[in-house]
Amino acid sequence: MADILRVDMTSLTVTHQPVPERYARLAGRALTSQMVADEVPPKCNPLGKDNKLVIAPGLLAGTTAPSSGRTSVGAKSPLTNGIKESNAGGLPGQKMGKLGIKAIVVEGQPQDKTLYVLKVTKDGAQLAPAGELAGMGCYKLNRKLWQAHGKKVGIIAIGPAGEMLLTNAGVSMNDIENGPGRYAGRGGLGAVMGSKGLKAIVIDDRDAPGVPIAEPERFKAAARRFAQDVLLKHPITSQALPTYGTAVLINILNEAGGLPTRNFSSGRFEGAAKVSGEAIAERIKQRGGKGKTGHPCHPGCVIRCSNIYPDEKGKPLVACLEYESDWALGPNCGIDDLDAIAELNRICNDVGIDTIEAGVALGVAMEAGIIPFGDGKGAIKLLKEVGKGTALGRLLGCGAATLGKVYGVRRVPVVKGQGIPAYDPRAVKGIGVTYATTTMGADHTAGYTVAPNILKCGGNVDPLKPEGQAEASRNLQIATAALDATGFCLFTAFAILDIQEGLPLVCEAVSACLGAPFTPDDFVALGKQVLKVEREFNQKAGFSREDDRLPEFFSTEPLPPHNVVFDVKAEDLDAVHN
Amino acid sequence: MADILRVDMTSLTVTHQPVPERYARLAGRALTSQMVADEVPPKCNPLGKDNKLVIAPGLLAGTTAPSSGRTSVGAKSPLTNGIKESNAGGLPGQKMGKLGIKAIVVEGQPQDKTLYVLKVTKDGAQLAPAGELAGMGCYKLNRKLWQAHGKKVGIIAIGPAGEMLLTNAGVSMNDIENGPGRYAGRGGLGAVMGSKGLKAIVIDDRDAPGVPIAEPERFKAAARRFAQDVLLKHPITSQALPTYGTAVLINILNEAGGLPTRNFSSGRFEGAAKVSGEAIAERIKQRGGKGKTGHPCHPGCVIRCSNIYPDEKGKPLVACLEYESDWALGPNCGIDDLDAIAELNRICNDVGIDTIEAGVALGVAMEAGIIPFGDGKGAIKLLKEVGKGTALGRLLGCGAATLGKVYGVRRVPVVKGQGIPAYDPRAVKGIGVTYATTTMGADHTAGYTVAPNILKCGGNVDPLKPEGQAEASRNLQIATAALDATGFCLFTAFAILDIQEGLPLVCEAVSACLGAPFTPDDFVALGKQVLKVEREFNQKAGFSREDDRLPEFFSTEPLPPHNVVFDVKAEDLDAVHN
Repeated sequence: MADILRVDMTSLTVTHQPVPERYARLAGRALTSQMVADEVPPKCNPLGKDNKLVIAPGLLAGTTAPSSGRTSVGAKSPLTNGIKESNAGGLPGQKMGKLGIKAIVVEGQPQDKTLYVLKVTKDGAQLAPAGELAGMGCYKLNRKLWQAHGKKVGIIAIGPAGEMLLTNAGVSMNDIENGPGRYAGRGGLGAVMGSKGLKAIVIDDRDAPGVPIAEPERFKAAARRFAQDVLLKHPITSQALPTYGTAVLINILNEAGGLPTRNFSSGRFEGAAKVSGEAIAERIKQRGGKGKTGHPCHPGCVIRCSNIYPDEKGKPLVACLEYESDWALGPNCGIDDLDAIAELNRICNDVGIDTIEAGVALGVAMEAGIIPFGDGKGAIKLLKEVGKGTALGRLLGCGAATLGKVYGVRRVPVVKGQGIPAYDPRAVKGIGVTYATTTMGADHTAGYTVAPNILKCGGNVDPLKPEGQAEASRNLQIATAALDATGFCLFTAFAILDIQEGLPLVCEAVSACLGAPFTPDDFVALGKQVLKVEREFNQKAGFSREDDRLPEFFSTEPLPPHNVVFDVKAEDLDAVHN
Repeated sequence: MADILRVDMTSLTVTHQPVPERYARLAGRALTSQMVADEVPPKCNPLGKDNKLVIAPGLLAGTTAPSSGRTSVGAKSPLTNGIKESNAGGLPGQKMGKLGIKAIVVEGQPQDKTLYVLKVTKDGAQLAPAGELAGMGCYKLNRKLWQAHGKKVGIIAIGPAGEMLLTNAGVSMNDIENGPGRYAGRGGLGAVMGSKGLKAIVIDDRDAPGVPIAEPERFKAAARRFAQDVLLKHPITSQALPTYGTAVLINILNEAGGLPTRNFSSGRFEGAAKVSGEAIAERIKQRGGKGKTGHPCHPGCVIRCSNIYPDEKGKPLVACLEYESDWALGPNCGIDDLDAIAELNRICNDVGIDTIEAGVALGVAMEAGIIPFGDGKGAIKLLKEVGKGTALGRLLGCGAATLGKVYGVRRVPVVKGQGIPAYDPRAVKGIGVTYATTTMGADHTAGYTVAPNILKCGGNVDPLKPEGQAEASRNLQIATAALDATGFCLFTAFAILDIQEGLPLVCEAVSACLGAPFTPDDFVALGKQVLKVEREFNQKAGFSREDDRLPEFFSTEPLPPHNVVFDVKAEDLDAVHN
């Protein structure tokens, strides 16, 4: 039977709560957001005792549905001060699903600074003091935890940044090789976990009962058809992503003039080709050794967009080197050296911070004149300060908004305190609408209008014109909120958007799993409900429509090469959630 | 005729605007808050082009009314993100009043980083580039400006902190000796001035027409009686303050167990006597030279609470060494060395930051372990970092909330982002109500319930009990909002509260000046109206009742020696502004 695990860090006890009827059909983001809205006071201190960290696998995580192992992490965000859901691949979600764990809710706060590890098995869950892990980077931590608990356990953990309560700390999930690089990175949820005194959660699914499926044959058929007829049919999910990884987007966005370069001062980077997905694949091929492309982040993924980037000797340097990280630590900082970017990415993974926010913060640090744009070695040195806990390191670890404020920088690309990702909203206006209006703070995954704007996937909306962007963003925000509940990876959406059978098959799989009707209309209704709950939380936390705006410079500074500004009207932004 | 000077920093032009009828009776805080509410978008970036800095002398500033030369500075605060009025004594207010300037409104924002000086004379006002003053500390700046513009001009200026846009930057006003120590310090308004590119405003009132008084004889009589029968009769305004200065409160609060010590961890400081007002007066007497007690901060003050604290050779080290500064940089940091405190105060005045926020930030830095409590030399070294613009210096210069956040400190004594001043709200519960509920962020001056709680002035409300505090705070918040409009120093309130003729005489003076009825009922109505306007602004800026709370540790950590917590109920706090 499915359970909610309540981990009370004040009393250091774990209790099993049967899943209330109203949560029975919710999972992933739908569950984390509903529980945060139900249980966390919107105005509370995100790092105080009243915040809760809710970790929930997607509905189908742990089943045989392809590319469905995502885990959602929710809380009030110390970065945005609003509600947050951040999700990741890796091992833990599937293992939680197989153990019948609907959610782990970490609440309260210990009086002292002792660190704990939570171990979850089929027999229950227990907290144990883990002072010896204090300050440990995530690579070493994961090795130690596999040594102690067996080489198959799922690990949800924080690095030193989370322990230091830095507001860009992420929550790491281990991958198949036990690397810490799958991150529920955004929104500082690692600091929430740190504020609870929880260093890691170890998920051991030996002899787990598995996910109960109401109608197994129907489910199996839907899952198989979704893989064969949808994911393995679409050129993006079957060719582009497995071949080049997500960094295939570097050249595409650069060509489109929307690759933010040197802290969003240009949409085209002269060094783009050197850091492209093609260049990464070529380098992996050249160096050989442990390097890999077309690699899954968890068992059962048929998209396999992940990679392992090797150093000169073929030893794994970082996994995965993704588009967003590549961009943030590369072009956004004017850096065109893949090895430097990979090293920066590894530092982020080890100290436990989100790569996007780290890169945006580095860009702001460069804008402030702390180091020059393009200085890869300087950036590595600077980013190492985070782990040392110096004033500058802590500032970097708190993200772009705080760093920009303290250094009096005017051009700080953030929305609701969160750094803007790898698509300039002036040249990809649909994503600008999403950045401005999502409940999450600037977040491309919340409504990926890059698809219709640039990839001509799921429609064709001119990226340079303001018309049609609000509608595109609205529809994708709704669909994403629902998809984030299922456990399916967001990248399945590329195929779902273009192949007619896609959404019906997703709904068929969900319906067969639940043993209850679940139609595409139900899917849309679920997405709308999730957004409604999240927006209500944010309103109570103090947000209003004026927070659904991009920083001013996007509407006043024309972006080369198209020399466009962000000109979607305020009333169109306000109408997104009408 | 009275004028509003509009200084447009985008176009670098100054225009004179006749005072609209609806502003005719407003001045000081009543005018700054009304204009900010009318003209500043509540959700704007406080350091962006849409914020406005409104500088308005009190209604009677420049007249012969005693102790009435206050100047209000208003804007959206970059420290609290709410509306702000911060006021100061010194020369500028009276000179603005005599020139018939109702308000100076600084708006817009220059494109580049050129600095400007605004010169105001009876013939008009002009902006001039002043790049040579960039980075200059306020002591040198004031000397330069008197050299250039004559030894009588009023100066409103910022130090390097304001230029760096640090959110604890204050606005300095010069005193009779041209020292920069009269600060509209709170709320980071110096950063707003810096964001406008304005280094200083020079007010030259030669041949000024003077404040027009509708009924001069009636006015003169009211002013004389207010001085003789009220201010010079009350023991606090006629004896305690002139003899020992405001730091007379050190021993009193220490005795009451409400002197926050070592970042609010005790209400009693073993070194209190060494840093008391009595000790300051004794030291000034011993050292002689330029040291002074019983000194006015502007001409015509009959309270004369100011002092000049001399160094070992009798040379002025700092003026004025006030209670709040003495406490913040002394007991709150565990420092009992008056010379170190005076040196810290001088650094604040020079670099241009608020002493209260600086001391609270230093206390939080000590709590974070950056330097130990009690380390005067370490504190001086640390505070010097602010002017150097290092990461740590900038953090200190951004105030306690930002520093505490970046260093992951749990015990951060702030409300709405502003540091809590020199009265522990657990042992002086009435002031806790004011800290929590004022529109200003933690601010003792907004409703000084220390008077009835500790000084038994204007009533007698047990400081250790929750009963009666909300009502005391409400009444004082209303009275203060009105008094801050008149230009009278808040210290006149001690006498007004206890001497029956006080308030009628204040109203008589205002009425005679305006040539219109102004009764004590009008006074109360004005105070209520000011608070209403301010609260509406804050609501639109995103504040709700949950922001009207003290940090949690005040309700969970008992404060020695009385071992009390803050236990005024949330519903009582919410009822303050009913």
